[in-house]
Order: sequence, then C-alpha cells, then structure tokens
Amino acid sequence: MTFVPSESEPQADAQTALRTAFAPGSVAIAGVSPRTTGWGGGQMFLRGIRNLDRVPQVYCLNPRGGELPDGTPLYQSLADVPGTVESLISAVPASAILGLIDDAIAKGVKVVHLFTAGFGETGSTERADLETEVLRRLHEAGIRMIGPNCMGVHSTRGGVSWMEEGSTTPGRVGMLSQSGMNASEVVGEGVRRGINFSNVASFGNASDLNEADFLEFLAHDPDTDIVLAYLEGIRNGRDFLRVARDMATARKPLVVLKGGLTEAGSRAASSHTGSLAGSAQIWNAVQRQAGFIPANSVEELLDLAVTIERLPSVSGPRCAVLGGGGGVSVLAADICDRNDIPVPWFSEKTQNVLREFTPVAGTSIRNPLDAGFMFEGDKIETALTAVADDPNIDWLMVHTGADSGGPSSRRDNFAERMANDLANVAPKLSKPLAVVIRQPRTNVGFERGLDLQRRLNERGIACYHSIESCARAVRRYLDWKNR
Amino acid sequence: MTFVPSESEPQADAQTALRTAFAPGSVAIAGVSPRTTGWGGGQMFLRGIRNLDRVPQVYCLNPRGGELPDGTPLYQSLADVPGTVESLISAVPASAILGLIDDAIAKGVKVVHLFTAGFGETGSTERADLETEVLRRLHEAGIRMIGPNCMGVHSTRGGVSWMEEGSTTPGRVGMLSQSGMNASEVVGEGVRRGINFSNVASFGNASDLNEADFLEFLAHDPDTDIVLAYLEGIRNGRDFLRVARDMATARKPLVVLKGGLTEAGSRAASSHTGSLAGSAQIWNAVQRQAGFIPANSVEELLDLAVTIERLPSVSGPRCAVLGGGGGVSVLAADICDRNDIPVPWFSEKTQNVLREFTPVAGTSIRNPLDAGFMFEGDKIETALTAVADDPNIDWLMVHTGADSGGPSSRRDNFAERMANDLANVAPKLSKPLAVVIRQPRTNVGFERGLDLQRRLNERGIACYHSIESCARAVRRYLDWKNR
Repeated sequence: MTFVPSESEPQADAQTALRTAFAPGSVAIAGVSPRTTGWGGGQMFLRGIRNLDRVPQVYCLNPRGGELPDGTPLYQSLADVPGTVESLISAVPASAILGLIDDAIAKGVKVVHLFTAGFGETGSTERADLETEVLRRLHEAGIRMIGPNCMGVHSTRGGVSWMEEGSTTPGRVGMLSQSGMNASEVVGEGVRRGINFSNVASFGNASDLNEADFLEFLAHDPDTDIVLAYLEGIRNGRDFLRVARDMATARKPLVVLKGGLTEAGSRAASSHTGSLAGSAQIWNAVQRQAGFIPANSVEELLDLAVTIERLPSVSGPRCAVLGGGGGVSVLAADICDRNDIPVPWFSEKTQNVLREFTPVAGTSIRNPLDAGFMFEGDKIETALTAVADDPNIDWLMVHTGADSGGPSSRRDNFAERMANDLANVAPKLSKPLAVVIRQPRTNVGFERGLDLQRRLNERGIACYHSIESCARAVRRYLDWKNR
Repeated sequence: MTFVPSESEPQADAQTALRTAFAPGSVAIAGVSPRTTGWGGGQMFLRGIRNLDRVPQVYCLNPRGGELPDGTPLYQSLADVPGTVESLISAVPASAILGLIDDAIAKGVKVVHLFTAGFGETGSTERADLETEVLRRLHEAGIRMIGPNCMGVHSTRGGVSWMEEGSTTPGRVGMLSQSGMNASEVVGEGVRRGINFSNVASFGNASDLNEADFLEFLAHDPDTDIVLAYLEGIRNGRDFLRVARDMATARKPLVVLKGGLTEAGSRAASSHTGSLAGSAQIWNAVQRQAGFIPANSVEELLDLAVTIERLPSVSGPRCAVLGGGGGVSVLAADICDRNDIPVPWFSEKTQNVLREFTPVAGTSIRNPLDAGFMFEGDKIETALTAVADDPNIDWLMVHTGADSGGPSSRRDNFAERMANDLANVAPKLSKPLAVVIRQPRTNVGFERGLDLQRRLNERGIACYHSIESCARAVRRYLDWKNR
C-alpha cells in the first residue's frame, strides 16, 4: 500500500512539527512532581517514555527544583535545561501556561504538546481567550501545538508515550483520537487482540494541529498500513476529506468512529473537546464521499483492524458457521443474516461428507454446522476442509465458548489444543477462517479465552469476541473492498 | 402480580402432567451408564437432581444392570423398579425408544421427558414417523410428553434439573426455551447476575407439550413473577397468544427472544427443532397483539430480568449518565440517544452544586457527568443526590471500568469500596440507580468486575455489562410499562 498524494502538498511546517513530536531527539516535561505516582501529571509521560526501547533525551521541570527519587534532576525552568529541547510536554496548570510558553519560545522549542486542560472546552469565555493567546504567541514564534486537553503522542519506534501499560512492540496500525481514554483503550485492548501500533495521537481541542494534520501524517507514514480514528468535531473538513479520499484511492484503509452524532452526544462533545459535532446525515454524506470505513464503537475499530490485518483475502460474504449448540446456531444465523452475511445451505456434496462422521441426533450439518463433536480428534480438519471447498461458501466462522472448555476430555488444555487444531488446518483451507471466542461467564472461561486468543494471534488467525462483531466487521470490510 | 385467566380453562391434563414433571415424587432415568462422566446421558440428570435440596425418589435404568460406583442400583427395565414412577426421563438412543415407551405405559408413568434426539428434526421421514408413533402410543395411554430432543425441566423447589453447575437457590424468574443450551446459559449467567429461578423448561421439538402449555404453567405458577422465553417455532399460536395477552393484562412480565426470524435463522431452526419459524413481520404483529417484551439476544433476556426485578420504579426515560472519561461520555450519550434514552443537560441548580467540588479542567458537569474524581471520598453521595433531585432526570446510570480500578489509592479494594459507596447512597436517592460495569480487558479486571457485580447484586442494585444493554433494557421495559 503506497500512498501518493493527489492534489496539494501537505502543510510543510505542520508535518515537520509532527515528525519531531513523534520521534523527538529531546523532550522536556513541564510539571513533574517528585511525589506523584497516580494518573495525571508529568510523571505519567516520563514513565511512558522510559518504558520504550528508544528513549530520547528527557528533561523534567518543576518550579521548586530538586530531583526525583532516582536522582533525575528537576529543572526550575526551561532556561535552566543544559541541552536543546525539540519537543515540550506541558503538564502544568492552565494558570501557569503563559509563562511556560514564553520560556519555550525563548528556548527554541519546535513543537509543544499541552496535556494542560481548562481552556475553551469548559465553556468559559475567559478560558477560551487564554487558549487563543497561547496559540497567538506560539504561531508568532513559528511553533506548532498539539492539544490542549489531550494525551499527545505515542510512538513505539519514536520513543514517546503517555501509556505505562501500553504497547511496546512496533506495529503497522496508526491512530488519531480526540479522546485520550479511547486511544488508550484501543491500544491496550489492541495489544491483547494481537494488533500492534506505529504512531498514535490524542489531540483534544485541536486548536492548532488538527485531525487533518494527523491524518496527513499517518497517510504518508511508511510505518503505518492501517489508520484508525476517533473524532468528535472536524476543524478542517476540506483537508480531512482530501487526505481521506487520497487514502481511499491508494487503498490504504481508514476506519473512523465518530462521536457526537446524536443530539445528546453532540452536547457531550462540546463539553469534552469544545467540538461542534454536526449531524449524522451530514456525516454519512462525508463518509460516502471520503470512502473510509465507518465504525460505531471502540470495539468495532479493533474488529476492523483485526479483519484488515488478518482476513485480507476474504472475497465474498457467504459464511459457513461452525460450532456447538442448536440454539446458538439459530441465533448465529439470525445475527449473520441481519448483518448482510448470508449463511447458505451447504451443497449436497459437502453435506454428504459431513454426514459420514456426524451423529444424526442432536446436530445439524446444513449450515450452521451445529457440531461440538467436531472439536474432537481429526474431525475438525475433515469438516473445515469440506466446508471450505463448498462453492456456496466464501469464508468460515468457527465459534466457541471458553467457559465449559468443551468435552471433559479436552478441558485441561482446551486453549492449546484448540489453537493447535485451528492453526494447523487454517493454512490448508481454500477459504479464509475467522474464530469467535464467545463472551466468557466465569474467571476460568475468561482466562481460557484470553489464552486461546493469544495463541491464535501468534498464528495470525483473526479472532473476535462475538458472532455479531465478526459478521459486522467482515461486512464493512467487504463493502469497502468492493467500493 | 396475581394472574387471572380470562377465556378458557387450561388443558387439565397438560397442566397436571407439568405439575408432576416440575415436582415429581419419583423419577426414573433411563440410559444411565456406570462409566459416563461427560455431558450427555442419564448421569447428567442424576447429578443435576442430586445437586438440589429436595431430591425425589430416583431410579436409574441400564439394560445391562449392575450398579453405579456409589452403590446405586441400575435396573434393567422399568418393570424391575420396586416403587411407582411418576416421571420418566429418557436418555436412551432413538432406536430403543419404542420399547421404553411400552414399559412406561405398563408401569403407569404420568409424564415422559425425551432427552433422546434423532426424530423429526433430522429431516428424515422415517425418523419423523417414529416420533409420531411414540406420541400415538403415549396419548392412547393418557401420558403427556416433553420433547423429544431437549433438556427437560429444572426446578430448584421441585428437585429436578439437568444442570450440575446451575442455580440451586429458589428464585422468582421462570423460563421456557426451545434450546437447552440457551436455557442453561440464561440460568448459569443469571445466577452470576443475581437472578434466581423458579421453574425452567427446555422443550425441543415440542411434539406434544408445547410453548403454550409451558407458558400457561408459568403464567399460573405462584413461584414465578417474571417469565423469559426462547422460542424457535410456535406450535399452538392461538393458546400462546391467549396466555400472553392474559399475562399482559395481569401485568405479569413476559420477555420473548425469538430465534429464526431471518431466512438463514429460519433454516437453522428447522434443522435444530424442526420448527417452522415464520417471518419477522408476522412476529412483530404477534408481539404487538400479545403485549410481551421483545428481546434480541440471550444477554437481553437477562438485562430485562435484571431491570424488572431491580428497577421496577423507573418511571421515565431521561437519564443522568455518570462516570469517568470524556470520550466514553460522548459515546455513552450517543448510545443512549440511539436507544431513545434522552440525556438532557442538568438544570442550572444541579450544575451549580456539581461545580462547587468539580475541577473545571478535564471534566464536564452538564450530563454526562464526566467525573472519575466522583468516586473518591464522599463526593459520590453529593453528586448522586444533586443529580437525582434534578427535575430533568428520571433515573441514574453510573458506569465504571474495572481494569484500572480507578485512582491508585482505591485499586486494592476497588469492588468493596465502590459497592459500599453505591449501596449506601442508592436507598437515599429520589430516583432509581443502575450500574454499568464495562467490559473487562484483563484477568484482574474480570475478577474485580465479577466481585463488584456480586456485591451490588447482594444489595439489590441493578447491574449491566454495557451502557448499550442498560439503555436498551430500560427503554424496552418502559415501553411495556407505558403500554
């Protein structure tokens, strides 16, 4: 997936600033308390950065000076920092921001990230004016700003992060998000689902660098193959649309979750990031024009990342549904059908193969294949091969619970055996295979499910948490592919 | 909720048979292997029954005779059983069914349950004929039948069950289900969600006693206040509709999940229980006429049971949404709005109260209240009280994750403190309170979430697993209440 920009060149200074922010040679963190161990404050960024393999030169600031328990000096101001500072992260209160900005200008900082909140998003005119003044001073000095009111950037390769427990393995999925918590959730859960990340940005109020700049950066980023986005408002619709269209043309997938599409959500977005969210109708028109993939939840962003990374060869919607449970199979067929995923009956030939080793009582071999027995012995290879070769079928969905762990003979090493069985047969099949690990009910089921998911991730098999999320993601991906 | 039947009397023999099946004096289980420890076979019923407080007289049958490891005798046929047998559970293969039926008639059994499968649901004419012949012989002898191809009945008070790990605490929720697995899932997960059960039936092919008979039984059952149903086909639409309507008139809630409403699901239902499922259009008309509460998934059946048991006083849809996270709050508002649950801004008075102790940066006090700080100290009581007294609000939804466990100071005893805080304030509020424990991502989050759910259940507080499931259940319940 190579990306060729079509109409105009990107804004040079914005992209230069972002390249610095995502992979700085040196960073200063303002507002590092020697005692803070909780969520907020500059310590969070220090811990996030030190967690990664590549650590830039880091300086910590605190107006009272002193040092951290490990001996790291706390400089009283930017002027005291001995070296150059390319990127500044501000975790000081809004009341102290103007002084810090003036120091940053004097120091020759190239890009500023304001974790600092309490500006326009509060609805107060005075605080909105303060935001404008910050921006005015920075622009006069040719410095670009991320935020305010945001977590900033996370880059495993570039050595910056706000996430202590986040991803440390470099991957190929990028993200831009107006909410830091949503970005943290996508990255944290993404890692458990086998998705690793390239460059991630949380940009909050977006009063300077906005969604179009971040999208432009990720569109051209050679480390990024897939882009996920959580947006509340759009500051620069023209450029956003242009970049999104270019990505669609270049077949570089962009998945967008739009918050604030309802009246209540739009009011909430205005309180959160000061965004004017716009209506669902307008947004749908934007989506059609821009050619990105729409998502309706954080979970769906990840379902789509999994689908694009792991099921790139899925070529049509017709699904073979395989797993134990008659009622589960009926509801699975309903769910697929409602999501425009047909579950056609298998051909006579396939049914004949399945009939050979299927007990006639208490099972169905027509599709869904209601067949818990399938998971015993080498039947799974025979069943999956027959079904994959069926001309009525485009892809296979195997679903399993993890609570009971299947027949008693297999409970002890459920995840290991199930993962081995599926991973051994998947590469031999003529059609792509997805696995649904249904919602666990018990502690042991949750652990077994995570274990199975991890093992399947390692073998490159697409895993989902419900039949619905699997069917929906495949449908959305196909709609985008066939566009 | 007293139930007064309106038009005709229930079929006397069907209801007499069901009273015996749900609370038999004596049971014979045919097809108990001395060595089986797995899922199927008569051992499952024996273990289920012995798990309960009230155990009827139980006899085990095996054509080879002998005894179980604990010394329980295995009778070679019903004729050898020393006492009377009121209820017979058949776990023999279909090939042996006619002999067993003849023995049951000779023994004077009152009701027969066929766990045995492999009849009409296979699509084979020969096997459908066998089912007809079984039924003909039983009816000639005045014996009623449950099944075939089903798990039968579970009654904590009556001392019968197919569930080893199921509920053992008597409760007020009844269920009828055409799928044994769906019934097992509702009961198993229901217990974790604080829902206890009265009488539960899985009735499979329903070739004799059908959904209308089971509904009639539960409608009149003095131990049952709420009825859940999973249906694939309807055998006796006239009587089902009559009983459902009577229940609506008597305000006894009935929640129905219909499988096979799509074309693919309908085909799957015909393979599963031989049901003719009918179209969604017809079903919607039935629902409107009958006045039950529709559900779209097994999860939703339980969400509605929780809502009806725990939030009976909810009187309107306008919701206060409280919890930490700006992006989460925006998406929560979107989800509520899409489910017809308004999230109106709080009154000026409420906002003033909240403003007094809310940091202005990084929070919103308009609704949703984006305020993780709320869970610290006694702020939660002040916040919830102010919000509950707001005239724009009908009910409160508090949402929390369980993975991070909140501010670091509270992580160790997250569930205990959170449950205590909420349980202490809930009874003092002027409006009902629901709690959403968002989907966990980690083992520790799953355990914390289960712990919190259990503690809140014990205090009678309604718990849900997602903002969407909570909003949807409250909306459906209100629609039914305001009908």
